[in-house]
Amino acid sequence: MATRFGATLVETIELACELIKRPSVTPNDEGCQQLLGERLAKIGFKLESMVFDDTTNLWARRGDSGPVFCFAGHTDVVPAGAEHAWIYPPFSATRKDGYIFGRGAADMKGSLAAMVVATERFVADNPDHQGSIAFLITSDEEGPFINGTPKVVETLEARQEKITWCLVGEPSSTAELGDVVKIGRRGSLTGDLTVFGIQGHVAYPHLAENPVHNAAPALAELAQQSWDDGNSSFPPTSFQISNVQAGTGAGNVIPGELHVQFNFRFSTESTAEQLKQHVVTVLDNHQLDYSVQWKLNGDPFLTESGALVEATVNAIGEHTGRLPELSTAGGTSDGRFIAPTGAQVIELGPINATIHKVNECVSEADLETLTRVYEKVLENLLC
Amino acid sequence: MATRFGATLVETIELACELIKRPSVTPNDEGCQQLLGERLAKIGFKLESMVFDDTTNLWARRGDSGPVFCFAGHTDVVPAGAEHAWIYPPFSATRKDGYIFGRGAADMKGSLAAMVVATERFVADNPDHQGSIAFLITSDEEGPFINGTPKVVETLEARQEKITWCLVGEPSSTAELGDVVKIGRRGSLTGDLTVFGIQGHVAYPHLAENPVHNAAPALAELAQQSWDDGNSSFPPTSFQISNVQAGTGAGNVIPGELHVQFNFRFSTESTAEQLKQHVVTVLDNHQLDYSVQWKLNGDPFLTESGALVEATVNAIGEHTGRLPELSTAGGTSDGRFIAPTGAQVIELGPINATIHKVNECVSEADLETLTRVYEKVLENLLC
Repeated sequence: MATRFGATLVETIELACELIKRPSVTPNDEGCQQLLGERLAKIGFKLESMVFDDTTNLWARRGDSGPVFCFAGHTDVVPAGAEHAWIYPPFSATRKDGYIFGRGAADMKGSLAAMVVATERFVADNPDHQGSIAFLITSDEEGPFINGTPKVVETLEARQEKITWCLVGEPSSTAELGDVVKIGRRGSLTGDLTVFGIQGHVAYPHLAENPVHNAAPALAELAQQSWDDGNSSFPPTSFQISNVQAGTGAGNVIPGELHVQFNFRFSTESTAEQLKQHVVTVLDNHQLDYSVQWKLNGDPFLTESGALVEATVNAIGEHTGRLPELSTAGGTSDGRFIAPTGAQVIELGPINATIHKVNECVSEADLETLTRVYEKVLENLLC
Repeated sequence: MATRFGATLVETIELACELIKRPSVTPNDEGCQQLLGERLAKIGFKLESMVFDDTTNLWARRGDSGPVFCFAGHTDVVPAGAEHAWIYPPFSATRKDGYIFGRGAADMKGSLAAMVVATERFVADNPDHQGSIAFLITSDEEGPFINGTPKVVETLEARQEKITWCLVGEPSSTAELGDVVKIGRRGSLTGDLTVFGIQGHVAYPHLAENPVHNAAPALAELAQQSWDDGNSSFPPTSFQISNVQAGTGAGNVIPGELHVQFNFRFSTESTAEQLKQHVVTVLDNHQLDYSVQWKLNGDPFLTESGALVEATVNAIGEHTGRLPELSTAGGTSDGRFIAPTGAQVIELGPINATIHKVNECVSEADLETLTRVYEKVLENLLC
C-alpha cells in the first residue's frame, strides 16, 4: 500500500510533460494520440484512429461488453498567445515550485495523462474488470468542433456502439481540485443578423433608410427580454449581443446594412426552436427587413444523478475530503455531443484559473490526486 | 455684339481643360492657382498666396474700395477612384460630344475657368467698375477643411477686410444649368460616442456589462426624436447614425465598448449647443457610462434675399430663361466659413450629376452659359 498510494505518481507528471512539449495547436495532434495509444495498447486496448479532414481522433476500447465507461478529452490546445509574456517557453513543460508550466497543462493534457495512468493502475489491479473502458480523444475541441467528437460520435452511433458513462477531463475545478463537477452545460445558439436599409448621404436622409435606426428598438427589446427563469440545475437563459457593425467609416454616409451577432446560453426550460421563434417575432413586429443565420452550437444537457455522479462524488470525497458542487455553469464542452446519445456525462479536471492565458500551469500534486480520483471512479463503476 | 455673344467662349473651355489636366488631388494644387493668378494679374488683380501647412490658397483682389464681390472656389479634386472604369483617363480632359471629361470638370474647375473668363470680359468692358472683385481659391475644400478657406477668412477678418457678396462656384445645378441656386446650407454637427461596459465571456454575463444592451434604448430614442420642424428655408433637422462598432469578432465575448458615430444636419431652428445638450440628456437619462466628442463642421447659414440673390436670379433669367429654385438642401461647402463674417453668400455652378463619380464631365455649352451668367452678375452688382 505504501508503494502504491504513498509514492508520488511521477508517471502522470512525466506523461503530462511529454504531451505539453508537443505544440499541438488546433487542429494539430503532433503525435500526442500515438503516444497515448501506445500506452493503452500495451494494456489491452484496441485502437481505432479516425481521421476526418484536418482532425485526428482516437477511439480506444478495452473489453467488448457493456457497460462502457469512457474517458473523453482533447490533445489540441489554444495558441500560446504573446510568447514573450510567458515566464517559461509555452511548450517547454517547465517544472517549478510544484507546478508544470505550459500551454495545455490544465486544458487538458494533465487530465489526459492522469486518465492513462489511472487506467494502467486500474487494469493492473483489475485485469478482468466488468464492462469496457474506452478513450474518445480528439484534436479539434478548441476549434470549429466539426471533425472531432461530433464525427466520432456519429461513427459510433452508426454501428450502435454506446457509451454508458462518460467522464470529460475538462478543467472543472475552480479553487481546489474537485470542488466543482460539471454535470451538464447550457445550450448555445448563435444568430448572425443582417438588417437591411438603403445606403445614402447623411445630407439626404429622405433618400436613404437607416438600418441602425430601424433596428435599435428591436435590439433594445431583445436585450431587455426575460427568456425563462432557469431551474434548480440551470440559471435563466441569457441573451448577449457579441458583435455589432454598420457603416463605411465615412462620417457622411448612412449605412446600408447593420450586422449583429448574438448568442444564447440556454437552460433546459427553453428550446433552440422557441428562442429562434421569439427573436423572429420581435424582428417581425418591428417590421425590419432582415435575414438571420442560426448556428446551434449545442443543446443543453444534464446528468442530474445516477451511478456516474455517485461514483465521482464518492471518489472525490475519498481522495480530497471534498463534497463537490454539481454545476452546469460556464462554457460549452464536447460533452454536449456525447450526452444526446443517452450517455451519462460529467466533467472533472484540474483548476481552470490559468486556462487559455499566458503562464498556464497545473499543480503536480493535483495531477497525482486526479489520477487517484479517476482510478477510484473506475473501481466504483467497473468492479 | 456678334463677336462677343455669338461666338463660342472657347477661352473657358481651354482654361478648364488646362486645369483638369493637373492632377490636383486634395490638398495638392499642382500649379492651378498660379495659372489662375497669372490671368488675373494681367487684368489688374493684386495676388496674395496664403500657404498654411500642406494647403495652398490664393487671395486676389482688383480694387481697394467696397463693396467687395468675391468668387470663391477650390482647385483640389477628390481622387479619381477606379481609373480602369473611366472611359477616358481622369486627368486627360478629353473633349467628346460637347462634354469635357475628367476629375474636377464639374467640381469645380469648370466654374473656376468660367469665373476667370467672365472677369476678364467684364474688366475689359468695365475697367473702372465700382467696388472690388476678389477671388478666394483654396486647395483644401474636399479634405479636412482646416488650412483652406477657414484660415484665409481668419486672415481677412484679422485685418478687417470684408467680403460683401460671395458667389461660390459649387455645382448647384441639378437637371439644367441654373435650375438651382444654393442660398444657404444646413449646419453639420458630428458626435463620436463611446459607451463603456465590462468585457467578459458570454457564458458568464453576470460578470460583464454589455454596452450594446445598455445603449440600445438610448439609440432608439435618439433615432425616433423630432428635433425641430425646420422653416420656410430649411427642412427639419435630421439625426443619422453613420457608424457603429462593438465586439472583438469572437462570438463568445461580450464587448467592453460600443462606438457610435452620428451626424446632425440642422436648420436655423436649432443651435449646435441645443442639439448637444439634448443628446447628453438622453444618454444621462439612460444612465449610460459614456464619453462623447463633438465636431461642429459648420453652423447653418442663409442668404434669403438681397442684392446678390437678385443679381444672380436676374443673370440666370437673362441667359437661360430659367427661374432658379433657391435651396438650402444638400451637403456642406466652404460658404459656411464665409457667411459668418456677414457676407451674403450663394452657390451657383454646373450640373452636379457626375461629381465625385467616375466619368465626371461638364457640358461645354453650360460652361459658356455659366461664363455669361457670372459676367452678368458682375454687371448687375458693380456697374
